[in-house]
Amino acid sequence: MSVTAPKGFRASGVAAGLKASGATDVALVVNDGPATAAAGVFTANRVQAAPVRWSRQVLRAGKVRAVVLNSGGANACTGPGGFQDTHATAEHVATTLSATGGTDVGAGEVAVCSTGLIGERLPMDKLLAGVTSAVAGLSGDAGPVAAEAIMTTDTRPKTTLVDRTAQPGGRAWRVGGMAKGAGMLAPAMATMLCVLTTDAFADAVDLDAALREACRTTFDRVDSDGCLSTNDTVLLLASGASGVTPSAGELTAAVTAACADLARQLIADAEGASKEVAVEVVGAASEADAVQVGRAVARNNLVKTALFGNDPNWGRILAAVGTTSATFDPDQLDVAINDVWICRDGAAAAPRDQVDLTGRQVYIRISLHAGADTATIWTNDLSHAYVHENSAYST
Amino acid sequence: MSVTAPKGFRASGVAAGLKASGATDVALVVNDGPATAAAGVFTANRVQAAPVRWSRQVLRAGKVRAVVLNSGGANACTGPGGFQDTHATAEHVATTLSATGGTDVGAGEVAVCSTGLIGERLPMDKLLAGVTSAVAGLSGDAGPVAAEAIMTTDTRPKTTLVDRTAQPGGRAWRVGGMAKGAGMLAPAMATMLCVLTTDAFADAVDLDAALREACRTTFDRVDSDGCLSTNDTVLLLASGASGVTPSAGELTAAVTAACADLARQLIADAEGASKEVAVEVVGAASEADAVQVGRAVARNNLVKTALFGNDPNWGRILAAVGTTSATFDPDQLDVAINDVWICRDGAAAAPRDQVDLTGRQVYIRISLHAGADTATIWTNDLSHAYVHENSAYST
Repeated sequence: MSVTAPKGFRASGVAAGLKASGATDVALVVNDGPATAAAGVFTANRVQAAPVRWSRQVLRAGKVRAVVLNSGGANACTGPGGFQDTHATAEHVATTLSATGGTDVGAGEVAVCSTGLIGERLPMDKLLAGVTSAVAGLSGDAGPVAAEAIMTTDTRPKTTLVDRTAQPGGRAWRVGGMAKGAGMLAPAMATMLCVLTTDAFADAVDLDAALREACRTTFDRVDSDGCLSTNDTVLLLASGASGVTPSAGELTAAVTAACADLARQLIADAEGASKEVAVEVVGAASEADAVQVGRAVARNNLVKTALFGNDPNWGRILAAVGTTSATFDPDQLDVAINDVWICRDGAAAAPRDQVDLTGRQVYIRISLHAGADTATIWTNDLSHAYVHENSAYST
Repeated sequence: MSVTAPKGFRASGVAAGLKASGATDVALVVNDGPATAAAGVFTANRVQAAPVRWSRQVLRAGKVRAVVLNSGGANACTGPGGFQDTHATAEHVATTLSATGGTDVGAGEVAVCSTGLIGERLPMDKLLAGVTSAVAGLSGDAGPVAAEAIMTTDTRPKTTLVDRTAQPGGRAWRVGGMAKGAGMLAPAMATMLCVLTTDAFADAVDLDAALREACRTTFDRVDSDGCLSTNDTVLLLASGASGVTPSAGELTAAVTAACADLARQLIADAEGASKEVAVEVVGAASEADAVQVGRAVARNNLVKTALFGNDPNWGRILAAVGTTSATFDPDQLDVAINDVWICRDGAAAAPRDQVDLTGRQVYIRISLHAGADTATIWTNDLSHAYVHENSAYST
């Protein structure tokens, strides 16, 4: 599992002292090639952290040799000094890697990701010392260790592995990955930090196309709390070490499978959540309509609190649908909760006591009767634990 | 105070048994004229309750003789039967009023408002009997009683009175009003139920213009929980009984003052709230930009939970601003919380421990440095009590 499962990658995770707890907080992923093509998808938030601004520039060249990630501080809203900190971190990774690895790595080939509290500068002495340790600790089986070092309020690391066999020929290739994210979890281009690796051969253009399509139907449809982060980054690095060049379709399918697996893990571990909720919208006039309706329901605090209370309150679902501009007739809306059609034609249908909401998985199906398109948004309930965790985070 | 303060109005409030608690749940407001001009503003939700659909038709003629309001049931998402119930209620008001009042009242002159749980039919036998009692109980000083009968999760009634003196001549005229609303409280045309009365003379067109302008800068800028109701209705009835015909500007100013007073009371009594929060956006390129930014901050669950935790987490405010399409440069954003400029130029400024958040009133000021326009959105924090109250409402 994780980023070192595909051939050609090393990783490490160390404790640099950024987290007061003393847990690991700096991760490094290095692509040893032979190829170094890469693609990235970043937050749609217009307030972007320094590492996002930096990594966007790096990815423009389509080539990444290493990714350094730190938890314990987002380096967002830190002004020009914060950007210089990111630059210095990338330089230090490049210099240290070049000194130990035999090959020349430039700072412009090093992507940087940060996560943690917004608005505070990083303690650079600790971070740079951590980078030195991380380079020294690089190994071909430390992917799981790296996945732990990027956790913030996550209660467990998120890793994935997709195994594929090339036809014809039967040679194997893989997509591995790690992700973090438990709060400020709502996308519109990625969400959270995620590094994907593959030992397939693919150029930057194909990687970019595969990653964008994968994010569109996975991370982009995760909406735990409606709050878009300043630091969201998803990177895909290809080493080519398997010697396999998959088709664009094969590559997209494998990357999508990896992203979907990680997205499910994010929702399962969202801050304070007691429910994992799939909002499936069917019968939409367009996919955009289906996404809009699903997101409106997923973000509605009254729907979310009702789910926390095991209350199949379909009236709140209809009220949320009614705030959208999607095509539908209010008198033709159907809603099922956990397969019980509790609302038909915009009015009460099956008795609400037929709906069993005691489990952790909740499946809401909304039929718009306006077309054939569909989309699913994954979200959580709004619980006392969410309020508690987020009212005490920075103090 | 309340709807009977202006001349020409009677009201009543009775217990019809719609609420399990036995509290009053049917209110009636009657305009005895001489004029009966009226205007209405309704929810922007596309899923609209039967009484909203009915009252929209009534208001199209610009004439309202009576408004009947019930708590204990929203009559929303109740299908054609629910609309027939609303129609029958209006007919019963008209018939009973005509029988007792000497003048002929048509059902088409009776507006209907309902509030409570979505998705259930009203018990019509109880409601119609309540209407009969309400007609019998009409009096010129029962405005406060009517204001109590429309409460749902409100902990106290909301009433207002604006006194004006016409110049020249010195004759007095008034705007009175009552409102309810404590949850599903976010507008885009009105929010909650509100009946305003005035003894000024004004035609339906002038009333409509005054009411729309008043709502635009008051109820439309209340956003307690981001959840737009299916039943929101604001009505303005003019009896002309003062004999005064104010100018359009005078009328708008008085109606706006009444709406602003009621809007403040709604935020002060919002479900589970421990803070009353004003989000003022200044330096915006347009008023629409200012409203968009204010609303994005007001609706952000991470900002709201931070405020509940007395945490001046300006980074979450910037992250919320970053989700909008308003004109601004992220590196020029300033944020003050309770008059402490905790963020300047998109980065940390005054120390966060200088911000005192222990009080109930919170004032967030965001400067976009993009123009001269401004707007204020009024909201609340997101508390354990909100989650508790809304996870247990219908069960």
